[in-house]
Amino acid sequence: MAYDLWYWTGAPGRGEFVRVAMEAAGISYRDRAREDGVDALVDDMEARTGIRPFAPPYLVDGDICIAQVAHIVTWLADRHGFGGKDARSNLELIMLQLTVTDITAEAHDVHHPIADALYYDDQKDAAKRVAEDFREKRMPKFFRYFEDALSANDGPFVLGEKWSHVDTSLFQLVEGLRYAFPQRMAAIEGDYPKLIACRDAMAQLDGLKAYLASDRRMAFNEDGIFRHYPELDAA
Amino acid sequence: MAYDLWYWTGAPGRGEFVRVAMEAAGISYRDRAREDGVDALVDDMEARTGIRPFAPPYLVDGDICIAQVAHIVTWLADRHGFGGKDARSNLELIMLQLTVTDITAEAHDVHHPIADALYYDDQKDAAKRVAEDFREKRMPKFFRYFEDALSANDGPFVLGEKWSHVDTSLFQLVEGLRYAFPQRMAAIEGDYPKLIACRDAMAQLDGLKAYLASDRRMAFNEDGIFRHYPELDAA
Repeated sequence: MAYDLWYWTGAPGRGEFVRVAMEAAGISYRDRAREDGVDALVDDMEARTGIRPFAPPYLVDGDICIAQVAHIVTWLADRHGFGGKDARSNLELIMLQLTVTDITAEAHDVHHPIADALYYDDQKDAAKRVAEDFREKRMPKFFRYFEDALSANDGPFVLGEKWSHVDTSLFQLVEGLRYAFPQRMAAIEGDYPKLIACRDAMAQLDGLKAYLASDRRMAFNEDGIFRHYPELDAA
Repeated sequence: MAYDLWYWTGAPGRGEFVRVAMEAAGISYRDRAREDGVDALVDDMEARTGIRPFAPPYLVDGDICIAQVAHIVTWLADRHGFGGKDARSNLELIMLQLTVTDITAEAHDVHHPIADALYYDDQKDAAKRVAEDFREKRMPKFFRYFEDALSANDGPFVLGEKWSHVDTSLFQLVEGLRYAFPQRMAAIEGDYPKLIACRDAMAQLDGLKAYLASDRRMAFNEDGIFRHYPELDAA
Protein backbone atom coordinates (compact mmCIF):
# COMPACT_ATOMS: atom_id res chain seq x y z
CA MET A 1 0.00 0.00 0.00
CA ALA A 2 1.42 3.38 -1.04
CA TYR A 3 -0.28 6.65 -0.23
CA ASP A 4 -0.51 9.52 -2.68
CA LEU A 5 0.61 12.81 -1.13
CA TRP A 6 -0.46 15.90 -3.03
CA TYR A 7 1.26 19.19 -2.26
CA TRP A 8 2.77 22.18 -4.05
CA THR A 9 6.30 21.65 -5.28
CA GLY A 10 7.95 25.01 -4.65
CA ALA A 11 8.64 24.81 -0.93
CA PRO A 12 8.56 22.33 1.98
CA GLY A 13 5.54 24.19 3.37
CA ARG A 14 2.78 22.43 5.26
CA GLY A 15 3.32 19.27 3.22
CA GLU A 16 6.64 18.77 4.94
CA PHE A 17 4.96 17.97 8.26
CA VAL A 18 3.29 15.04 6.51
CA ARG A 19 6.50 13.94 4.79
CA VAL A 20 8.46 14.00 8.05
CA ALA A 21 5.84 11.84 9.77
CA MET A 22 5.78 9.32 6.91
CA GLU A 23 9.56 9.17 6.56
CA ALA A 24 10.03 8.74 10.32
CA ALA A 25 7.50 5.89 10.30
CA GLY A 26 8.87 4.29 7.11
CA ILE A 27 5.55 4.65 5.31
CA SER A 28 5.63 4.35 1.51
CA TYR A 29 4.18 7.24 -0.43
CA ARG A 30 4.27 8.87 -3.82
CA ASP A 31 4.87 12.60 -3.79
CA ARG A 32 2.55 13.12 -6.71
CA ALA A 33 3.08 16.74 -7.72
CA ARG A 34 6.85 16.31 -7.50
CA GLU A 35 6.57 13.24 -9.74
CA ASP A 36 3.91 14.44 -12.17
CA GLY A 37 4.06 18.22 -11.97
CA VAL A 38 1.95 20.95 -10.46
CA ASP A 39 -0.58 20.76 -13.29
CA ALA A 40 -1.39 17.24 -12.18
CA LEU A 41 -2.11 18.58 -8.69
CA VAL A 42 -4.38 21.31 -10.02
CA ASP A 43 -6.17 18.77 -12.22
CA ASP A 44 -6.58 16.37 -9.32
CA MET A 45 -8.03 19.08 -7.08
CA GLU A 46 -10.43 20.28 -9.75
CA ALA A 47 -11.66 16.76 -10.42
CA ARG A 48 -12.73 16.34 -6.79
CA THR A 49 -16.32 17.26 -5.93
CA GLY A 50 -18.57 17.18 -2.88
CA ILE A 51 -16.59 16.67 0.32
CA ARG A 52 -13.04 17.42 -0.79
CA PRO A 53 -9.83 19.10 0.37
CA PHE A 54 -9.97 22.87 0.79
CA ALA A 55 -6.26 23.06 -0.02
CA PRO A 56 -3.14 20.89 -0.21
CA PRO A 57 -1.59 18.99 1.42
CA TYR A 58 -3.95 16.08 1.15
CA LEU A 59 -3.34 12.37 1.31
CA VAL A 60 -5.16 9.79 -0.76
CA ASP A 61 -5.56 6.09 -0.07
CA GLY A 62 -8.06 4.47 -2.41
CA ASP A 63 -11.36 6.29 -1.96
CA ILE A 64 -10.23 8.07 1.20
CA CYS A 65 -8.94 11.59 0.68
CA ILE A 66 -7.99 13.65 3.72
CA ALA A 67 -6.71 17.21 4.03
CA GLN A 68 -5.47 19.26 7.00
CA VAL A 69 -2.00 18.48 8.34
CA ALA A 70 -2.99 17.71 11.93
CA HIS A 71 -5.73 15.40 10.68
CA ILE A 72 -3.48 13.60 8.18
CA VAL A 73 -0.71 12.85 10.66
CA THR A 74 -3.18 11.72 13.33
CA TRP A 75 -4.82 9.38 10.84
CA LEU A 76 -1.44 7.96 9.82
CA ALA A 77 -0.43 7.59 13.45
CA ASP A 78 -3.59 5.60 14.22
CA ARG A 79 -2.94 3.25 11.31
CA HIS A 80 0.82 2.87 11.67
CA GLY A 81 1.35 2.81 15.41
CA PHE A 82 2.78 6.20 16.26
CA GLY A 83 -0.20 7.54 18.17
CA GLY A 84 -0.91 7.54 21.91
CA LYS A 85 -0.74 4.70 24.38
CA ASP A 86 -4.47 4.75 25.16
CA ALA A 87 -7.64 6.73 24.37
CA ARG A 88 -6.82 9.58 26.74
CA SER A 89 -3.27 9.80 25.45
CA ASN A 90 -4.55 9.94 21.85
CA LEU A 91 -6.81 12.84 22.78
CA GLU A 92 -3.94 14.69 24.42
CA LEU A 93 -1.70 14.21 21.41
CA ILE A 94 -4.33 15.60 19.05
CA MET A 95 -4.64 18.66 21.30
CA LEU A 96 -0.88 19.18 21.11
CA GLN A 97 -0.82 18.55 17.36
CA LEU A 98 -3.50 21.19 16.79
CA THR A 99 -1.43 23.63 18.81
CA VAL A 100 1.51 22.99 16.47
CA THR A 101 -0.94 23.85 13.69
CA ASP A 102 -1.67 27.14 15.46
CA ILE A 103 1.92 28.28 15.88
CA THR A 104 2.66 27.21 12.30
CA ALA A 105 -0.21 29.37 11.04
CA GLU A 106 1.11 32.26 13.14
CA ALA A 107 4.63 31.77 11.74
CA HIS A 108 3.11 32.04 8.26
CA ASP A 109 1.06 35.11 9.14
CA VAL A 110 4.23 36.89 10.30
CA HIS A 111 5.25 37.39 6.66
CA HIS A 112 1.70 37.52 5.26
CA PRO A 113 -0.42 39.36 7.82
CA ILE A 114 -2.69 41.09 5.31
CA ALA A 115 -3.42 38.60 2.56
CA ASP A 116 -1.91 35.51 0.97
CA ALA A 117 -2.85 37.01 -2.38
CA LEU A 118 -0.47 39.95 -1.88
CA TYR A 119 3.32 39.96 -2.19
CA TYR A 120 5.43 40.17 0.95
CA ASP A 121 6.71 43.58 -0.13
CA ASP A 122 3.15 44.90 -0.13
CA GLN A 123 2.68 43.97 3.54
CA LYS A 124 6.22 44.39 4.84
CA ASP A 125 5.46 47.17 7.32
CA ALA A 126 2.66 45.18 8.91
CA ALA A 127 4.92 42.11 8.86
CA LYS A 128 7.55 43.88 10.95
CA ARG A 129 5.00 44.65 13.65
CA VAL A 130 3.66 41.09 13.65
CA ALA A 131 7.19 39.68 13.75
CA GLU A 132 8.03 41.62 16.90
CA ASP A 133 4.99 40.24 18.69
CA PHE A 134 5.64 36.72 17.40
CA ARG A 135 9.29 36.72 18.49
CA GLU A 136 8.79 38.33 21.87
CA LYS A 137 5.46 36.97 23.06
CA ARG A 138 4.19 34.12 20.97
CA MET A 139 7.36 32.02 20.53
CA PRO A 140 8.10 31.92 24.28
CA LYS A 141 4.45 31.20 25.10
CA PHE A 142 4.19 28.28 22.69
CA PHE A 143 7.66 26.96 23.55
CA ARG A 144 6.86 26.99 27.27
CA TYR A 145 3.69 25.08 26.47
CA PHE A 146 5.53 22.38 24.51
CA GLU A 147 8.33 22.26 27.10
CA ASP A 148 5.72 21.56 29.78
CA ALA A 149 4.12 18.86 27.62
CA LEU A 150 7.54 17.25 27.21
CA SER A 151 7.92 17.29 31.00
CA ALA A 152 4.89 15.04 31.50
CA ASN A 153 7.05 11.97 30.91
CA ASP A 154 10.79 11.34 31.09
CA GLY A 155 11.54 12.27 27.47
CA PRO A 156 12.98 12.60 25.03
CA PHE A 157 9.51 12.47 23.45
CA VAL A 158 6.09 13.59 24.65
CA LEU A 159 5.15 9.99 25.52
CA GLY A 160 8.60 9.24 26.92
CA GLU A 161 10.75 6.79 24.95
CA LYS A 162 8.18 6.26 22.20
CA TRP A 163 7.89 8.99 19.58
CA SER A 164 4.53 10.05 18.20
CA HIS A 165 3.05 12.32 15.52
CA VAL A 166 3.48 15.25 17.88
CA ASP A 167 7.25 14.76 18.01
CA THR A 168 7.55 14.64 14.23
CA SER A 169 5.69 17.94 14.04
CA LEU A 170 7.76 19.50 16.83
CA PHE A 171 10.89 18.48 14.90
CA GLN A 172 9.68 20.25 11.77
CA LEU A 173 8.50 23.27 13.75
CA VAL A 174 11.92 23.76 15.37
CA GLU A 175 13.65 23.33 12.01
CA GLY A 176 11.34 25.82 10.37
CA LEU A 177 11.70 28.42 13.10
CA ARG A 178 15.50 28.01 13.10
CA TYR A 179 15.44 28.81 9.39
CA ALA A 180 13.05 31.74 9.69
CA PHE A 181 14.29 33.30 12.93
CA PRO A 182 17.91 32.19 13.46
CA GLN A 183 18.80 35.06 15.78
CA ARG A 184 15.73 34.66 17.94
CA MET A 185 16.09 30.88 18.12
CA ALA A 186 19.76 31.15 19.09
CA ALA A 187 18.75 33.56 21.86
CA ILE A 188 15.96 31.49 23.41
CA GLU A 189 16.55 27.82 22.55
CA GLY A 190 18.51 27.30 25.76
CA ASP A 191 15.38 28.05 27.77
CA TYR A 192 13.62 25.03 26.29
CA PRO A 193 16.03 22.11 26.63
CA LYS A 194 13.34 19.40 26.41
CA LEU A 195 12.00 20.80 23.15
CA ILE A 196 15.49 20.81 21.64
CA ALA A 197 16.24 17.35 23.03
CA CYS A 198 13.06 16.11 21.36
CA ARG A 199 14.16 17.66 18.06
CA ASP A 200 17.62 16.09 18.41
CA ALA A 201 16.26 12.64 19.26
CA MET A 202 13.92 12.74 16.27
CA ALA A 203 16.83 13.62 13.95
CA GLN A 204 18.57 10.41 15.08
CA LEU A 205 15.73 8.07 14.09
CA ASP A 206 16.81 5.84 11.19
CA GLY A 207 13.95 6.82 8.94
CA LEU A 208 14.27 10.53 9.51
CA LYS A 209 18.06 10.48 9.36
CA ALA A 210 17.96 8.84 5.95
CA TYR A 211 15.33 11.26 4.77
CA LEU A 212 17.23 14.34 5.90
CA ALA A 213 20.31 13.11 3.99
CA SER A 214 18.30 12.42 0.83
CA ASP A 215 17.34 14.71 -2.02
CA ARG A 216 13.71 14.19 -1.05
CA ARG A 217 14.26 16.69 1.77
CA MET A 218 13.69 20.11 0.24
CA ALA A 219 15.51 23.17 1.55
CA PHE A 220 13.47 25.91 3.19
CA ASN A 221 12.98 28.98 1.00
CA GLU A 222 10.97 32.19 0.71
CA ASP A 223 7.95 30.54 -0.88
CA GLY A 224 6.95 28.44 2.09
CA ILE A 225 5.46 28.73 5.55
CA PHE A 226 8.78 29.37 7.26
CA ARG A 227 10.58 32.20 5.46
CA HIS A 228 13.76 33.97 6.38
CA TYR A 229 13.50 37.70 5.94
CA PRO A 230 16.38 39.21 7.96
CA GLU A 231 14.36 42.31 8.80
CA LEU A 232 11.80 40.14 10.62
CA ASP A 233 14.36 38.47 12.87
CA ALA A 234 16.15 39.75 15.97
CA ALA A 235 17.60 38.24 19.12
CA MET B 1 -22.30 12.89 33.83
CA ALA B 2 -21.87 16.62 33.35
CA TYR B 3 -18.92 18.14 31.55
CA ASP B 4 -17.12 21.24 32.76
CA LEU B 5 -16.69 23.81 30.00
CA TRP B 6 -14.11 26.48 30.70
CA TYR B 7 -14.13 29.62 28.60
CA TRP B 8 -13.85 33.39 28.98
CA THR B 9 -17.09 35.11 29.98
CA GLY B 10 -17.00 38.35 27.98
CA ALA B 11 -18.06 37.12 24.55
CA PRO B 12 -19.44 34.01 22.81
CA GLY B 13 -16.06 33.55 21.13
CA ARG B 14 -14.66 30.14 20.31
CA GLY B 15 -16.43 28.64 23.33
CA GLU B 16 -19.76 29.16 21.60
CA PHE B 17 -18.97 26.50 19.00
CA VAL B 18 -18.73 24.02 21.87
CA ARG B 19 -21.88 25.30 23.55
CA VAL B 20 -23.90 25.07 20.31
CA ALA B 21 -22.80 21.46 19.80
CA MET B 22 -23.64 20.48 23.38
CA GLU B 23 -26.99 22.27 23.38
CA ALA B 24 -27.97 20.75 20.03
CA ALA B 25 -27.10 17.30 21.35
CA GLY B 26 -28.75 17.84 24.75
CA ILE B 27 -25.50 17.24 26.61
CA SER B 28 -25.34 18.45 30.23
CA TYR B 29 -22.50 20.79 31.09
CA ARG B 30 -21.49 23.39 33.58
CA ASP B 31 -20.26 26.65 32.11
CA ARG B 32 -17.71 27.06 34.83
CA ALA B 33 -16.34 30.56 34.36
CA ARG B 34 -19.87 31.94 33.96
CA GLU B 35 -20.86 30.20 37.19
CA ASP B 36 -17.73 30.79 39.24
CA GLY B 37 -16.08 33.81 37.62
CA VAL B 38 -13.10 34.43 35.43
CA ASP B 39 -10.69 34.14 38.38
CA ALA B 40 -11.76 30.52 38.73
CA LEU B 41 -10.85 29.95 35.09
CA VAL B 42 -7.44 31.55 35.51
CA ASP B 43 -6.86 29.49 38.68
CA ASP B 44 -7.91 26.31 36.93
CA MET B 45 -5.58 26.95 33.99
CA GLU B 46 -2.66 27.77 36.26
CA ALA B 47 -3.18 24.62 38.30
CA ARG B 48 -2.80 22.43 35.21
CA THR B 49 0.70 21.16 34.44
CA GLY B 50 2.34 18.89 31.87
CA ILE B 51 0.05 18.23 28.93
CA ARG B 52 -2.59 20.93 29.32
CA PRO B 53 -4.73 23.35 27.30
CA PHE B 54 -2.86 26.12 25.54
CA ALA B 55 -5.93 28.35 25.83
CA PRO B 56 -9.68 28.16 26.52
CA PRO B 57 -12.09 26.78 25.55
CA TYR B 58 -11.39 23.43 27.13
CA LEU B 59 -13.68 20.69 28.29
CA VAL B 60 -13.11 18.53 31.35
CA ASP B 61 -14.57 15.13 32.13
CA GLY B 62 -12.93 13.52 35.14
CA ASP B 63 -9.23 13.24 34.38
CA ILE B 64 -9.66 14.03 30.67
CA CYS B 65 -9.09 17.64 29.72
CA ILE B 66 -9.24 18.60 26.06
CA ALA B 67 -8.72 21.95 24.33
CA GLN B 68 -9.12 23.08 20.70
CA VAL B 69 -12.66 23.59 19.41
CA ALA B 70 -12.50 21.16 16.48
CA HIS B 71 -11.09 18.49 18.77
CA ILE B 72 -13.65 19.04 21.53
CA VAL B 73 -16.67 18.84 19.24
CA THR B 74 -15.30 15.77 17.45
CA TRP B 75 -14.73 14.06 20.77
CA LEU B 76 -18.26 14.90 21.91
CA ALA B 77 -19.67 13.72 18.59
CA ASP B 78 -17.92 10.36 18.95
CA ARG B 79 -19.33 9.88 22.43
CA HIS B 80 -22.82 11.21 21.88
CA GLY B 81 -23.68 10.02 18.39
CA PHE B 82 -23.42 13.09 16.21
CA GLY B 83 -20.36 12.03 14.23
CA GLY B 84 -20.12 10.31 10.86
CA LYS B 85 -21.86 7.19 9.62
CA ASP B 86 -18.63 5.18 9.25
CA ALA B 87 -14.86 5.55 9.54
CA ARG B 88 -14.44 7.33 6.23
CA SER B 89 -17.33 9.68 6.98
CA ASN B 90 -15.79 10.51 10.38
CA LEU B 91 -12.53 11.43 8.67
CA GLU B 92 -14.32 13.65 6.18
CA LEU B 93 -16.23 15.43 8.92
CA ILE B 94 -13.03 16.18 10.83
CA MET B 95 -11.52 17.65 7.65
CA LEU B 96 -14.55 19.91 7.26
CA GLN B 97 -14.54 20.83 10.94
CA LEU B 98 -10.88 21.88 10.76
CA THR B 99 -11.75 24.06 7.78
CA VAL B 100 -14.39 25.81 9.90
CA THR B 101 -11.56 26.38 12.38
CA ASP B 102 -9.54 28.00 9.59
CA ILE B 103 -12.18 30.45 8.42
CA THR B 104 -12.98 31.28 12.05
CA ALA B 105 -9.32 32.12 12.68
CA GLU B 106 -9.32 34.27 9.54
CA ALA B 107 -12.50 36.06 10.69
CA HIS B 108 -10.69 36.86 13.93
CA ASP B 109 -7.55 38.00 12.18
CA VAL B 110 -9.60 40.49 10.13
CA HIS B 111 -9.89 42.72 13.19
CA HIS B 112 -6.60 41.68 14.80
CA PRO B 113 -4.10 41.19 11.96
CA ILE B 114 -1.07 42.44 13.85
CA ALA B 115 -1.33 41.12 17.41
CA ASP B 116 -3.96 39.97 19.87
CA ALA B 117 -2.10 41.96 22.49
CA LEU B 118 -2.84 45.27 20.70
CA TYR B 119 -6.12 47.17 20.60
CA TYR B 120 -8.19 47.16 17.42
CA ASP B 121 -7.58 50.90 17.02
CA ASP B 122 -3.83 50.25 16.88
CA GLN B 123 -4.23 47.93 13.88
CA LYS B 124 -7.25 49.46 12.20
CA ASP B 125 -5.53 50.40 8.93
CA ALA B 126 -4.17 46.89 8.48
CA ALA B 127 -7.59 45.52 9.46
CA LYS B 128 -9.27 47.42 6.62
CA ARG B 129 -6.92 45.81 4.10
CA VAL B 130 -7.44 42.34 5.54
CA ALA B 131 -11.20 42.84 5.62
CA GLU B 132 -11.33 43.61 1.92
CA ASP B 133 -9.49 40.39 1.07
CA PHE B 134 -11.61 38.38 3.50
CA ARG B 135 -14.90 39.71 2.13
CA GLU B 136 -14.03 39.49 -1.53
CA LYS B 137 -11.87 36.38 -1.79
CA ARG B 138 -11.92 34.28 1.34
CA MET B 139 -15.63 34.27 2.20
CA PRO B 140 -16.71 33.15 -1.30
CA LYS B 141 -13.93 30.54 -1.42
CA PHE B 142 -14.85 28.99 1.93
CA PHE B 143 -18.60 29.27 1.28
CA ARG B 144 -18.26 27.52 -2.09
CA TYR B 145 -16.30 24.79 -0.33
CA PHE B 146 -18.99 24.25 2.30
CA GLU B 147 -21.75 24.51 -0.31
CA ASP B 148 -20.06 21.71 -2.26
CA ALA B 149 -19.72 19.60 0.88
CA LEU B 150 -23.44 20.09 1.53
CA SER B 151 -24.11 18.87 -2.03
CA ALA B 152 -22.58 15.47 -1.35
CA ASN B 153 -25.87 14.25 0.13
CA ASP B 154 -29.46 15.45 -0.17
CA GLY B 155 -29.32 17.90 2.74
CA PRO B 156 -30.18 19.75 4.73
CA PHE B 157 -27.06 18.59 6.58
CA VAL B 158 -23.65 17.42 5.40
CA LEU B 159 -24.61 13.79 6.02
CA GLY B 160 -28.12 14.28 4.68
CA GLU B 161 -30.95 14.07 7.19
CA LYS B 162 -28.69 13.47 10.19
CA TRP B 163 -26.90 16.50 11.60
CA SER B 164 -23.32 16.26 12.81
CA HIS B 165 -20.69 18.37 14.59
CA VAL B 166 -19.92 20.04 11.28
CA ASP B 167 -23.46 21.38 10.97
CA THR B 168 -23.41 22.84 14.48
CA SER B 169 -20.19 24.65 13.60
CA LEU B 170 -21.54 25.85 10.24
CA PHE B 171 -24.57 27.23 12.09
CA GLN B 172 -22.39 29.24 14.45
CA LEU B 173 -20.11 30.34 11.62
CA VAL B 174 -23.02 31.75 9.60
CA GLU B 175 -24.43 33.47 12.69
CA GLY B 176 -21.06 35.00 13.51
CA LEU B 177 -20.42 36.23 9.98
CA ARG B 178 -23.94 37.69 9.76
CA TYR B 179 -23.14 39.68 12.89
CA ALA B 180 -19.69 40.78 11.75
CA PHE B 181 -20.37 41.41 8.05
CA PRO B 182 -24.12 42.05 7.63
CA GLN B 183 -23.77 43.90 4.33
CA ARG B 184 -21.48 41.31 2.80
CA MET B 185 -23.59 38.40 3.98
CA ALA B 186 -26.78 40.00 2.62
CA ALA B 187 -25.03 40.40 -0.71
CA ILE B 188 -23.72 36.85 -1.11
CA GLU B 189 -25.89 34.53 1.00
CA GLY B 190 -28.14 33.83 -1.97
CA ASP B 191 -25.25 32.21 -3.79
CA TYR B 192 -24.99 29.51 -1.11
CA PRO B 193 -28.52 28.18 -0.59
CA LYS B 194 -27.42 24.84 0.88
CA LEU B 195 -25.27 26.55 3.51
CA ILE B 196 -28.16 28.76 4.55
CA ALA B 197 -30.59 25.83 4.49
CA CYS B 198 -28.23 23.95 6.81
CA ARG B 199 -28.15 26.95 9.17
CA ASP B 200 -31.95 27.19 9.10
CA ALA B 201 -32.47 23.48 9.72
CA MET B 202 -30.07 23.58 12.68
CA ALA B 203 -31.99 26.51 14.18
CA GLN B 204 -35.14 24.35 14.17
CA LEU B 205 -33.65 21.51 16.24
CA ASP B 206 -35.36 21.30 19.63
CA GLY B 207 -32.16 21.57 21.63
CA LEU B 208 -30.76 24.47 19.70
CA LYS B 209 -34.09 26.28 19.48
CA ALA B 210 -34.45 26.18 23.26
CA TYR B 211 -30.87 27.33 23.70
CA LEU B 212 -31.19 30.28 21.33
CA ALA B 213 -34.28 31.45 23.23
CA SER B 214 -32.55 31.12 26.62
CA ASP B 215 -30.35 33.57 28.48
CA ARG B 216 -27.51 31.07 28.14
CA ARG B 217 -27.08 32.28 24.54
CA MET B 218 -24.82 35.30 24.73
CA ALA B 219 -25.09 38.15 22.21
CA PHE B 220 -22.16 38.76 19.88
CA ASN B 221 -20.09 41.79 20.79
CA GLU B 222 -16.77 43.51 20.06
CA ASP B 223 -14.75 41.36 22.45
CA GLY B 224 -15.15 38.09 20.58
CA ILE B 225 -14.04 36.33 17.42
CA PHE B 226 -16.84 37.79 15.28
CA ARG B 227 -16.88 41.56 15.73
CA HIS B 228 -18.94 44.15 13.92
CA TYR B 229 -16.91 47.17 12.95
CA PRO B 230 -18.91 48.97 10.23
CA GLU B 231 -15.75 50.18 8.50
CA LEU B 232 -14.71 46.55 7.88
CA ASP B 233 -17.98 45.60 6.17
CA ALA B 234 -19.23 46.32 2.66
CA ALA B 235 -21.51 44.62 0.18
